[in-house]
Amino acid sequence: MTAIEDLIRLLKHLPGMGEKSASRLAYHLIRTDSSFNKALGSAIMEIQDRIHPCPICGCYTEDELCSYCSSPDRDNSLLCVVEQPQDVLSISSSGAYNGLFHVLGGAIDPLSGIGPDSLSFPQLMKRIDEGGFKEIIIATNPTEEGDTTALYIRHLLKDREGIAITRLASGLPIGGDLGYADKLTLARSMRGRVRI
Amino acid sequence: MTAIEDLIRLLKHLPGMGEKSASRLAYHLIRTDSSFNKALGSAIMEIQDRIHPCPICGCYTEDELCSYCSSPDRDNSLLCVVEQPQDVLSISSSGAYNGLFHVLGGAIDPLSGIGPDSLSFPQLMKRIDEGGFKEIIIATNPTEEGDTTALYIRHLLKDREGIAITRLASGLPIGGDLGYADKLTLARSMRGRVRI
Repeated sequence: MTAIEDLIRLLKHLPGMGEKSASRLAYHLIRTDSSFNKALGSAIMEIQDRIHPCPICGCYTEDELCSYCSSPDRDNSLLCVVEQPQDVLSISSSGAYNGLFHVLGGAIDPLSGIGPDSLSFPQLMKRIDEGGFKEIIIATNPTEEGDTTALYIRHLLKDREGIAITRLASGLPIGGDLGYADKLTLARSMRGRVRI
Repeated sequence: MTAIEDLIRLLKHLPGMGEKSASRLAYHLIRTDSSFNKALGSAIMEIQDRIHPCPICGCYTEDELCSYCSSPDRDNSLLCVVEQPQDVLSISSSGAYNGLFHVLGGAIDPLSGIGPDSLSFPQLMKRIDEGGFKEIIIATNPTEEGDTTALYIRHLLKDREGIAITRLASGLPIGGDLGYADKLTLARSMRGRVRI
């Protein structure tokens, strides 16, 4: 196997990459600036050695604690529960949230063998027990699995007094078009309609 | 900038990769098997050091000459002229050609500043002078630039006796659908219709 075939074979393992796109990408890398390839190659090789999950919230960090858990400027009365570490970045970069995070590591999905035991609920409950949180914002995905997980968290927290439990609003995406919205999204945005 | 942001920034430079897909790919790499990342990273870092253009035909090789130019089993009366090194792999893997190749390094495209001087026409003419080729198959892309390049090669070779000059057939792609074919392709396939 030649060096190019070898590179194409590896690139084909990336998500969404077929034979043609892997080959196009390989030839693109061949023509590209060699310092870029060195930087990209070493970033890929080193990424897993450079980061680890934050022991408190579970999002990725290079330091002992992540930038959210260690920041004195964030509102520590708010806790946003997400499925995956990348969701932390998405929500934090929306600019609409300044509280703390908790990464579950997925959503409850019995068909894929992911039960509550596979997720970081004990750590979540421990944080809530210790934390003095006023609001738990459940930001799991608006999917069946995400909804199940949200209901499960509400069930876990049903006896806690003084903690508001909320869920991200579902509805039409901004800039979207009614004609392209699916029925479920449209139904949710109708049920969740707000007074203007 | 964190290690993840750094990786996303580099991935975003790849063709067809936006902010979202770069971020999704980065988190995929974080979760993936670390030996895969080591293999992919080093393949990307080393690719340009491991290969170089074949001094005869211009396609990429790891050896002194490429596998086509050095093979005793290929028909050295046929020469297929292509634009890019990756076209060699495409044609060779179609299984319909067993001759030699010549890589031009692009197509004539005055609007992008690529004139005949930027391409390997002198090497092509030298090979044809020395080569004893019976047929030159022009396999440039079926685009305006590819057509211009094909006409230019025909012009260069107009005084050569005994060398057939051919061009890859254009027409409907196999498995295609008339309804989805563009007008130009349909017109070409009509003009180039064959008796059955």
